[in-house]
Amino acid sequence: MKVGVLGATGNVGQRFVQLLEDHPWFEIDALTASETSAGKTYADAAAWALPNEMPDAVREVTVRETSADEVSDEVEIVFSALPSSAAKEVEPEFARDGYIVASNAGWARLEDDMPLVVPEINPDHLGLLEVQRDERGWDGGIIKNPNCSAITMTPTLAALHPLGLNEVTVATLQAVSGAGYMGVTSMEILDNVVPYIGSEEWKMENEPRKILGEFDGARVDEADVSISASCNRVPTVDGHLENLWCRFDEDVGEDDAKEAMRGFTTLDLPTAPDQTIVVREENDRPQPRLDRNTGGGMSVVAGRIRDDGDARLKYSCLSHNTVRGAAGASVLNAELVAERYL
Amino acid sequence: MKVGVLGATGNVGQRFVQLLEDHPWFEIDALTASETSAGKTYADAAAWALPNEMPDAVREVTVRETSADEVSDEVEIVFSALPSSAAKEVEPEFARDGYIVASNAGWARLEDDMPLVVPEINPDHLGLLEVQRDERGWDGGIIKNPNCSAITMTPTLAALHPLGLNEVTVATLQAVSGAGYMGVTSMEILDNVVPYIGSEEWKMENEPRKILGEFDGARVDEADVSISASCNRVPTVDGHLENLWCRFDEDVGEDDAKEAMRGFTTLDLPTAPDQTIVVREENDRPQPRLDRNTGGGMSVVAGRIRDDGDARLKYSCLSHNTVRGAAGASVLNAELVAERYL
Amino acid sequence: MKVGVLGATGNVGQRFVQLLEDHPWFEIDALTASETSAGKTYADAAAWALPNEMPDAVREVTVRETSADEVSDEVEIVFSALPSSAAKEVEPEFARDGYIVASNAGWARLEDDMPLVVPEINPDHLGLLEVQRDERGWDGGIIKNPNCSAITMTPTLAALHPLGLNEVTVATLQAVSGAGYMGVTSMEILDNVVPYIGSEEWKMENEPRKILGEFDGARVDEADVSISASCNRVPTVDGHLENLWCRFDEDVGEDDAKEAMRGFTTLDLPTAPDQTIVVREENDRPQPRLDRNTGGGMSVVAGRIRDDGDARLKYSCLSHNTVRGAAGASVLNAELVAERYL
Amino acid sequence: MKVGVLGATGNVGQRFVQLLEDHPWFEIDALTASETSAGKTYADAAAWALPNEMPDAVREVTVRETSADEVSDEVEIVFSALPSSAAKEVEPEFARDGYIVASNAGWARLEDDMPLVVPEINPDHLGLLEVQRDERGWDGGIIKNPNCSAITMTPTLAALHPLGLNEVTVATLQAVSGAGYMGVTSMEILDNVVPYIGSEEWKMENEPRKILGEFDGARVDEADVSISASCNRVPTVDGHLENLWCRFDEDVGEDDAKEAMRGFTTLDLPTAPDQTIVVREENDRPQPRLDRNTGGGMSVVAGRIRDDGDARLKYSCLSHNTVRGAAGASVLNAELVAERYL
Repeated sequence: MKVGVLGATGNVGQRFVQLLEDHPWFEIDALTASETSAGKTYADAAAWALPNEMPDAVREVTVRETSADEVSDEVEIVFSALPSSAAKEVEPEFARDGYIVASNAGWARLEDDMPLVVPEINPDHLGLLEVQRDERGWDGGIIKNPNCSAITMTPTLAALHPLGLNEVTVATLQAVSGAGYMGVTSMEILDNVVPYIGSEEWKMENEPRKILGEFDGARVDEADVSISASCNRVPTVDGHLENLWCRFDEDVGEDDAKEAMRGFTTLDLPTAPDQTIVVREENDRPQPRLDRNTGGGMSVVAGRIRDDGDARLKYSCLSHNTVRGAAGASVLNAELVAERYL
Repeated sequence: MKVGVLGATGNVGQRFVQLLEDHPWFEIDALTASETSAGKTYADAAAWALPNEMPDAVREVTVRETSADEVSDEVEIVFSALPSSAAKEVEPEFARDGYIVASNAGWARLEDDMPLVVPEINPDHLGLLEVQRDERGWDGGIIKNPNCSAITMTPTLAALHPLGLNEVTVATLQAVSGAGYMGVTSMEILDNVVPYIGSEEWKMENEPRKILGEFDGARVDEADVSISASCNRVPTVDGHLENLWCRFDEDVGEDDAKEAMRGFTTLDLPTAPDQTIVVREENDRPQPRLDRNTGGGMSVVAGRIRDDGDARLKYSCLSHNTVRGAAGASVLNAELVAERYL
Repeated sequence: MKVGVLGATGNVGQRFVQLLEDHPWFEIDALTASETSAGKTYADAAAWALPNEMPDAVREVTVRETSADEVSDEVEIVFSALPSSAAKEVEPEFARDGYIVASNAGWARLEDDMPLVVPEINPDHLGLLEVQRDERGWDGGIIKNPNCSAITMTPTLAALHPLGLNEVTVATLQAVSGAGYMGVTSMEILDNVVPYIGSEEWKMENEPRKILGEFDGARVDEADVSISASCNRVPTVDGHLENLWCRFDEDVGEDDAKEAMRGFTTLDLPTAPDQTIVVREENDRPQPRLDRNTGGGMSVVAGRIRDDGDARLKYSCLSHNTVRGAAGASVLNAELVAERYL
Repeated sequence: MKVGVLGATGNVGQRFVQLLEDHPWFEIDALTASETSAGKTYADAAAWALPNEMPDAVREVTVRETSADEVSDEVEIVFSALPSSAAKEVEPEFARDGYIVASNAGWARLEDDMPLVVPEINPDHLGLLEVQRDERGWDGGIIKNPNCSAITMTPTLAALHPLGLNEVTVATLQAVSGAGYMGVTSMEILDNVVPYIGSEEWKMENEPRKILGEFDGARVDEADVSISASCNRVPTVDGHLENLWCRFDEDVGEDDAKEAMRGFTTLDLPTAPDQTIVVREENDRPQPRLDRNTGGGMSVVAGRIRDDGDARLKYSCLSHNTVRGAAGASVLNAELVAERYL
């Protein structure tokens, strides 16, 4: 199946290219970027900044401008690593022209007819693609994955939700790659912490409510879980760590929580990890440098699950913010669409 | 007034020496350390690791073994930067012999007759010194300051307590200096976060309850505030940052909270800052590198105070963990004792 | 004496403002910045990012556009923290209008009539101001300080030059602040080193040759010392560390080198440190975090001076790159001009 | 072929275990550590601190005390990750008993009958194993790899040696993992550089001379290349970067140098990389975070090769200090021995 990557030269775009190398189903046919990069080879256009080398297969691919006119009709899925402002203009254009857009961009995630999906949690929300086509008159469609900080905790919340979860308090310790290559200057973050990330708390407080919600065939009814987040940027390269306090309708035991996480749904898709949530027993895990690559960067790692009294549990969890938290999430969404719809 | 520093060669000991240079009331007469350092000059014994130079006045002072026999009777106050295990043995010996021990060591902070004091908050708890003398038969006494992570948030809790505070949820982002010079290896913390600090959460959950408690002349009745902490070590050198969620008996406005913090007690003591709590309005402050030296490292800096619905406020606060959080706290305690009792 | 700061809102501009607070001779009268900042108060225009607070005296000063027309004639000296491209346009305009421009900007440092001065080394090169006025028809003049990486080693080279220095090999480990606030992204430098800094090696290889040169009343004859540099960016905030190998006409003893450095010229100017070069004997110094503030950030700290055989010595040296290496250097130059010419 | 790892629980020991997982020739039969770990499972004894998980195959292996008596006679090769002091006692014991010891420990590298080998450079020095057996009466033997900082540059020196190399000046920027897990505290290195690593410069100045030397069947005649090193520890996790200046008997062109490096010997051994030296053309490479895993961590990456005038070239090079610089180097040595002698 031929695919394209929109915004292929940036931080997340490079992760897409890396994850799609040797993908069993998808083959990169088109790489797009801004006007200034169009016409160059990918090797020239992208300042490759991942620890492993740029795949040879894409080095000589000519980068095109980001426009549906520039991408072959043989391409079925395009991955969007575009910044939200550009995505807003371009993604509907691709959807209209019949492409499935697996989008990591923030815009429109909470719109009524927009599927916001984590395949292990709410695959049925894909049904919104039909609603979307009907309402917007598109031949294709857009499917969104949540923000990197939201996606880190959401699988654990989904595991705990059936146990009566009603309130979540969460503090994040987020890696700099989450802000994009140019997002955080070294002067801001060396020997420092920044206790603020623009609009991040709002995303964390709202996106999981939709993902955990019920799809009735037309709309998603948000889950009745209140969430309060406080977001911090810390001097780590990759891997968002989060401290959570979860309140339940009644007491929930640590062992029940662990069992719920360990037994959480896994999928048989190429990019899905063997274990969606890995629960560690050491008291000092998860740690970003040691655990971010668990399950190829697609597992969420949880630890320090402990009773907090008063029907609360507290724990920490972590995921790789540019894999499970961005490019990997979109690829997994595309695999779900491909398996069930294409 | 002649003073001594016990455990003068370590990280916190060096901060004591630095803070006592040019102190208007106190003059260093004795510096003690372990047996291996005894007999050396301080310049030889201490691997000075603070950004400013070792004060000339102490360079040639001969370091003595940590024992009351080694310290002159003219010394009235000794500051203890000892590790808790050593402090447990030595501090009572000094107290018995008539010295006032201003102790930063963790042991015994919650014992019934032990004053655990932040001068701006609970100066009246000093009355426990009398109780202590009576019960233990000491000629001197021991006064404790809280743990560095507890002390960071406690002034803000004290400011909010009269507004009906009943529940605190707190996540910390703590600097490596809090663990002592050898406490955290670089392999543990570079490009990483460690979501666990041994016994730190317990201290944060208990010490503030005593500090905010009522002293009835004999004992302290702990404040009825439940606290739940999750502690993290991050790659910063100095400055503990904390994210707090505070629940009240009824709604409290942001402005009332700010006013309570800004108007919190200040003291006219040499080491007390002009402003005990500095409230900043920028949405990305406080930050460790930029704000840890506010008020000479003795102010707590709060920011991002915002309504969280459901009778909760959330905010962040910060203090310099080896100044307000350790050596400076003990010096301020000693100033309080000196002013009121000596 | 009234002074102005051109480009006052950036990283180096802020250092100027900080160093000029409480200056015994200079009083800030004008702060300039780009068009977008003009008209705002300095507090609003500058994203203050230094560890100590913005001085109160400048908070409410209205920032003006960077143009000689905007600055009062009562101002005698302007400090230039402008980027080189802007400086090239603006500095001559100020010089023409009668201002002394103490410039940290890179452009024109090696032009024939441009004094490139480190006051302790070549104060006589100030004579070029006369040449400059004659040749360019200016009423004022421009005086330059060297680049931050060049200035770190140059005082030590000046101390060793009389001993027969003829070849310098130098590797640098430079802090991120040297690139300006936005200069180095966190993704580039966390857990990393970048072995390249654009045009930095060229500056290090040429500027010291002019500074150590002979001024004959009309031109400077460059010193006959060959220099080869290799420059690296490392994850430190402030303080450039350099490893040097110096070859001499004949063997030079370590003690002679130390004596030459310790005995190097000091000046009686407000911003000059007591000791221009501080030589340390410990084998692991200088270190950026511990030594960058020596002499208020104006001393160069040298260490590990050791014989290397074959008429070579090797050693390391360090300075604070935004104080001695930038704003402090310009202020010291201005003090020299003020003392000798105004 | 059955192998053992001596000192298997430490930083380098863990790398051995990781590199030997799925090795086509070698199978781990024995893991040894200090007395306190003996008897525990490897999972319990080793505080695993590598980014990827501990291999399942070793989790339940019982750790033995480090002694030849504890290791089966079926084991042919033991890898030594012991600290030098322990290695000095234990390695000869194993060699006497017939084991081949592939040792990363520093002791005895320069002893006359000790092969110090980089397989791509001086495989013939393995002949010293015969000399060693004759002189020491051992049934087995010890083969050494160089120190991590020496090994990084030595392949490039070997490539340039035939072009008339006679003098090397080198500054290093070394990662913290080179000092072992506990070697560098975070207080030492955050926001800092330490311009000193004990005995490292001596190793860099001597080991390459032996490796580049001629073996005449009995002894190695050191190469006549003078080397001067200045070593620095920087805040990176893995990957030693080095800046070199190489002087030749006469001018050598950049292109000739690149060709010599790119064409340098490669070996057909399991752990040998496809390209021993990878030369990059970008002006800002190699960088530790981006390039340390080149060739599975076994390639040396060189860049910025440029003419320096006066028969000198300068360039930078990098290797992964715990792979090519330690465990990988020993494994490659063992593969060479296995192929040629066993």
